[in-house]
Parts: sequence; structure tokens; C-alpha cells
Amino acid sequence: MHTASFDGVLDAARQIAPAAVRTPLLEHPALNERLGGRVLMKAETVQVAGAFKFRGAYNRISRLTEDEKARGVVAYSSGNHAQAVAAAARMVGTSAVIVMPADSPRVKVEGVLAFGGEVRSYDRYTESREAIGEEIASTRGSVLVRPFDDPFVIEGQGTTGLEIVEDARARKVEIDQLLCGASGGGLIAGINLSMAALSPDTRVIGVEPAAYNDTLLSLQAGERLTHAPVAHPTICDALMTDRPGELTFPINQRLSGVETVTDAEVAEAVRYAYRTLKLVVEPGGAVSLAALLTGKVEARDRTSAIVLSGGNVDAALFSAIIEDRFIPAT
Amino acid sequence: MHTASFDGVLDAARQIAPAAVRTPLLEHPALNERLGGRVLMKAETVQVAGAFKFRGAYNRISRLTEDEKARGVVAYSSGNHAQAVAAAARMVGTSAVIVMPADSPRVKVEGVLAFGGEVRSYDRYTESREAIGEEIASTRGSVLVRPFDDPFVIEGQGTTGLEIVEDARARKVEIDQLLCGASGGGLIAGINLSMAALSPDTRVIGVEPAAYNDTLLSLQAGERLTHAPVAHPTICDALMTDRPGELTFPINQRLSGVETVTDAEVAEAVRYAYRTLKLVVEPGGAVSLAALLTGKVEARDRTSAIVLSGGNVDAALFSAIIEDRFIPAT
Repeated sequence: MHTASFDGVLDAARQIAPAAVRTPLLEHPALNERLGGRVLMKAETVQVAGAFKFRGAYNRISRLTEDEKARGVVAYSSGNHAQAVAAAARMVGTSAVIVMPADSPRVKVEGVLAFGGEVRSYDRYTESREAIGEEIASTRGSVLVRPFDDPFVIEGQGTTGLEIVEDARARKVEIDQLLCGASGGGLIAGINLSMAALSPDTRVIGVEPAAYNDTLLSLQAGERLTHAPVAHPTICDALMTDRPGELTFPINQRLSGVETVTDAEVAEAVRYAYRTLKLVVEPGGAVSLAALLTGKVEARDRTSAIVLSGGNVDAALFSAIIEDRFIPAT
Repeated sequence: MHTASFDGVLDAARQIAPAAVRTPLLEHPALNERLGGRVLMKAETVQVAGAFKFRGAYNRISRLTEDEKARGVVAYSSGNHAQAVAAAARMVGTSAVIVMPADSPRVKVEGVLAFGGEVRSYDRYTESREAIGEEIASTRGSVLVRPFDDPFVIEGQGTTGLEIVEDARARKVEIDQLLCGASGGGLIAGINLSMAALSPDTRVIGVEPAAYNDTLLSLQAGERLTHAPVAHPTICDALMTDRPGELTFPINQRLSGVETVTDAEVAEAVRYAYRTLKLVVEPGGAVSLAALLTGKVEARDRTSAIVLSGGNVDAALFSAIIEDRFIPAT
């Protein structure tokens, strides 16, 4: 059994290089000035399919055998992994069935369809996406591409951390702390592998929606806890996995900390990214920025790196946020 | 008298390096695939004050003597130069008065105020901004920072072209054609200087709003013509100068061509940048993208570079465009 490792991250970097975007590590004087420290922003919003998820999906799918390609892939996802799998599947010449919650943002469903993926809808509250995905996989003989509990996926996501360190060092900058959203935990686990190997003094901090704080609760408990269903789900649709992954959790037990942010704070970060940074960041992609802007994670007199992890947001919600018409459900 | 030159562009690059953002040259697989060619996008949207204008303004204002700084600067501008002058003035420790049309986007007026600038409003149709600006300059003894008819401003804007070529060559790419908005013509004149020196085989193409095509008409006539007032102004507020500059026009007579785009085409480009590229681009900053997306400038089987020149757009207009509610006036 392949185990996720930093060597695997290096291998993933070679694997995805022909297909993925080497996203920029941005720095904006206005943000630095506001926070009194340096902030390096990894803009995964401009990644293929609009989120970091393409890295892991392509790293997995591009390794399929010809026989596996003939049978296609299946995935379950709230949306960004869905689009990434559809995009990667098309690039390598295989088919993809995506199991998506019925309340997924329309832009994400349309994204899957535009990449030629087939969508199977399910009810987030009454059906198990894992069960549906596994049934399709066994019926069709397809490979199930898990959103985070797959070592190749974790290693693919880890290339984000590798690039952050490389680009920071090219500017002769060392990173004091790195903030990244945590849901299933694939991205932050992969980043953890990279930082432990390349920059062990960097504090790696997870950020979660306050309404879906399963990573925080699980780390406090020392075991993987499942979050109870939430009546008013967060606008961070990308971060609504209800418990940490089996493979990701042991890696993420090394985290320096976890912070939570409310929907109102996330909306303010999305609006700031629009107004000042001129970037389209989806709510789930803006939690790290929110953690800095609110001061929940101190940015003064240090260098922070954050991942703006995705930019797939419905125009109606984005408009409400930037026009200051958005009212948080909770 | 200092004359704009490529040596001046190189000098401007050194001058602005401590203050300006080295903006990324982005490339998105989805856009390349749609157009059948490579497109390199210079994202001046993430420049200080959200537009390329900071380059020229800082290159001029940072060269003021202590005596000049004590008397402050004055500028007239539809908005992006305004914010750039205010930002640069604050950085070098001088004051700025900005003469802005009463119908400027609110976001641009707020930007000037946020940078500590003083705003003097005027009527675009009945008053002369040049006259007001020059009167303030002579009354206060302030230095007038012209938006394009200043060699230091042209050279500052030219650093955009320098960086495009440097970053393209770092990827071993030669640029077949470079597209850039044309209004007063400062940016494209500066880029012309850079491309003539570094990449003389690159075709440099200007793009204008169809309703404000003074550059096209002037180049056809071989002399600077003034566009008649337009009843329904374009959404490209950044490109509403009514005639080419005195210093910029002779340089821009070397252009390989000029294309025009309608407001509907520009709105579609702004929407595409939001949906697919995840970038906030203002209408006037999206004209080059519009020229490629419409096929008015062929992108197939070649490498194009475009400048996404600014991202300062009111939330109400941006929302209308991304939600497909925008109706062009003409």
C-alpha cells in the first residue's frame, strides 16, 4: 500500500507539471499594510477548474492503467473535486461519473458538465455519497477517486505547499505561518508533508467554518469525530465534510492550531478579495484570509502564507456579498 | 526636455521596483483551449490601486524634488490614474488633489479618498479637466501629473511590456501579438517602446470601445482627431479620453492595428474573466480579452499577450454583468 509522503509530493509535482497551472504566489501592498505583516497568497483560484483540487485529481487519474481508463472513474464531491475529476478524466481520455449533493452550487454542476462529466445527484441529508460512489464503482468496475482519503490525492495537493516554499525562497522570504482551509483535510495534509520536509519551523494552521468545526473538535478529542447535521449550512460549501479523513487525520495531528470563522467573517473576506485584491474567491476558499482579516490569527510583524483555495461561486451569492446584501443564516 | 525612450523604460523599472507589484503573467488552459492558441495575460488588476496606472504615476512622483513635494501634486483622471497618483503621493510623502468627472465610478472616488487624496469634481460634458487641473497647479504651485502626456508616465507604463517579455522568455515563449487598450495611449505607447527594443517582430494592437474610437480614427487620418461627445457613454469609463495624446500619438503610429469592441462584447469578457479566470476585471481593462473572445483579433495557432489593465469596477455594475442582467446602452 502506497503511503503519502514528501517523496510522493515531489513525484506528484513532476506528474502534474504538464497539465496543472503553476499558480502565482501573490502579495498585495494594501493587505500587508492593513495587517502590519507580509502575506503571500497562493492563488489556486486560477488553477484548472478553479480550485486546488485539480492537483490531486490529476495526480491520481493520470496514473490509471489503460484497462482502468477503459472503465472510467467515479467520484463524490461537493463540487470542486467534482470538476477537477471531470477535467482530469477528459485530459487523460477516460469518462467520469460524479456523485454531487442536490444543493451543490450551480456553477460547480455546470463545470462538471462542461468538462464532459456525468452527474448523479443525491440528498446530502438522507443519502450516503460514499455508498453511492462505491456502488457505481463496483457495478461499472470504475476506479473511485476519493476526494482526500487517497495518498496520491494528498500528495497532489501537497504540491501547493512545495510551490509556496519554492516561490517564497526565490524572493528570499521564510514563512512564519501558513494558513489553509481544513475539511476532509487533503490539502492541509499534503501541505503538512511539504512544510515538514522543507520548512519545519513554519506553523501550519487549519481554518474551518464555525458551523463545521469537525477538525478542531477531532484534534481536541484526539480522534476523528463526526459533526452533527447542521440545519443552516455554511456558505463554505467546499468545507462541509463532516469528519476528518482516515488518512489525513494522523498527518493533521501535527497542525500547530485550528481556527474557526463565521459566515459573516468569510463574506467580508470575499468582499475584500473582490474590492482590493481583484480576485474572485469562493467562500470556502477565503477562510484563511478571513482568519487574518479578523485578527483571529495574528499577522503583525511576521510573514504569513495563505491558500486562496478556490473561486467557484454562484454569481447570485457573489453579487449579494460584494453589494453588501448578504445576510448570514446563522 | 526628456523624451520617452526604452532606456527610460529600463530606468523606470528600477525606479518603481520598491513600490510596484511585479504582476503575474497568467495563462489559463481553458482560455487557450477555447481560442486554439496560447494567451498570456498580464494581470495589472493586482497592481497597487488596481490598475497599471500606478507604474507611471510612481515613476513621475517619486522623482519630485523636496521643494516640489512640499507643494503637492495635482492630476485629472477618470479614476485609475486618480487612485494611482493618490497612492504614489502618499508613499512619497506629498499631497494630491485629483480632478475627477462627476460620473466617475464610486469605487474610484472612494479609492482616491482612501489613499488620502483630495477630490475636485467636474462635469465631463461642460468643463475642461485640463483647464481645472492647470489652474490648481498654477495657484498652488503644484506639479501637474498628466495621465499620459508625460515621458516619465509613458516610460513607467512601458515597464508592463518589459515584464511581459521577460516573463514570457523565462518560459521560452515568443509573443506573436500583444493587445492592449488604447485611450490617451500612455500604456500602449510605453509598451510600444519596450516591444520595439526587445521583441520587434511582435505585432502590437490597440483595442478601443466602439463608441470612443478616437485612436482608430486618428491613425486612419494620420493626425490627432477629437471624438465628438457621446450621449450614451461606454461602460469602459477608463477609456473615454476623447483624443490621443500629443506625446503618445507619434509613438502609436507604429501600431500594427486597432480593433474596436462594443459594450456587449466587453461585458461578455468581464463575465468570462469572472466565471473562468476568477479575476475581477473592469470593463476598460477587458477590451483586449474581448477582442480575442470575439475573434476580432485571431488567436488561433499563435501566442497572444494581453493586458488586463485594471479591476476597479462598482459592485452594482459587476453584479449586473456576472448575473447576466446588464443591458448595453447602445
